[in-house]
Amino acid sequence: MTAAERRAERRERLMDAGLEAFTAEGYAASSIEKLCAAAGVSTRNFYEEFSGREALLMALHDRIIERALVAAADALAEAHDAPLLVRVEKAIRAHMTVTAEDPRWARLSYVELVGVSAAVEQHRLAWRERWVDFLVAEAENAAGRGERPARDFRLSAVAIIGAVNELIYHWSLNGRQRPFEEVIAEAVRFISALALAD
Amino acid sequence: MTAAERRAERRERLMDAGLEAFTAEGYAASSIEKLCAAAGVSTRNFYEEFSGREALLMALHDRIIERALVAAADALAEAHDAPLLVRVEKAIRAHMTVTAEDPRWARLSYVELVGVSAAVEQHRLAWRERWVDFLVAEAENAAGRGERPARDFRLSAVAIIGAVNELIYHWSLNGRQRPFEEVIAEAVRFISALALAD
Repeated sequence: MTAAERRAERRERLMDAGLEAFTAEGYAASSIEKLCAAAGVSTRNFYEEFSGREALLMALHDRIIERALVAAADALAEAHDAPLLVRVEKAIRAHMTVTAEDPRWARLSYVELVGVSAAVEQHRLAWRERWVDFLVAEAENAAGRGERPARDFRLSAVAIIGAVNELIYHWSLNGRQRPFEEVIAEAVRFISALALAD
Repeated sequence: MTAAERRAERRERLMDAGLEAFTAEGYAASSIEKLCAAAGVSTRNFYEEFSGREALLMALHDRIIERALVAAADALAEAHDAPLLVRVEKAIRAHMTVTAEDPRWARLSYVELVGVSAAVEQHRLAWRERWVDFLVAEAENAAGRGERPARDFRLSAVAIIGAVNELIYHWSLNGRQRPFEEVIAEAVRFISALALAD
């Protein structure tokens, strides 16, 4: 193993330990010391990778939300020629499959990340703006193709983000007992209704 | 002023100071000492009213959410004989008007209250269950009147809660620049669509 590989592997162990610590005990109750012990990494090495707990929290959030965004964008690219409601279904299925895969990611994104500090809140809201832009661009694309009338879609995008996040969190929280297909179907229902509404 | 009146008035001052402290600096960064100084109340008196910071946070949240629930229920009772979509519009207008009245309440409910501790999270989720039950009961009422087909409305209720909360928070956050009517119209748009959807 090269030094770079060892370092990358150590960073991954810290990411894993962070995800577990921040979601098992909760971010507020977690500590760098315990997390480093779990990862088998010294605190000096921790600070070589992250400026602090907040930086690790945001790096974890970046990872899940980037995966979700790429999954949704890929699904849309693949379904480029399909009708609007098929594209909606493919994109939301791709997004939700990634985000709901492990309930710890839902807890991290929708609970632990919220209200930590001004810096973390700014990070969270910047991501939300990116999602709004993404959804608005897709709605404008659909309007450009004549699939729906043009209108200001920004508030609808905000509503969709709130609804989808709540559905994923609710499902994760309740031990993922309902079939995941029901949760996807509800999101498709919601987004389709807004996609078609004047 | 009787002793009971003095105590009630002191409690109100603590509620005011708590709302301000938890939303200006953020709950995580606030302290009982500073909050008592702002309220002109001793910490001993604080503990006569609340078991700690978390209890004050939850008492504040109870107040805003109870107001919102009563406002929505009253609006529905008044519009009892109106058609479904009129009832939807009246109820959501009443709810949003109360909740968005002061941006500090939105910040408290949607940011500061989230992820504080297991106890606060349980409190937050218990309230959400009450809202789900409320919305499901109204949907079943509409089905019973033959206004829409009966179906399991629970996941739609979850989606509605997420969307409405996100819209209110988004609007508060952006300095309430858009006309509030647009935010209400957006909520009416998707709740109506879901209310009518099979």
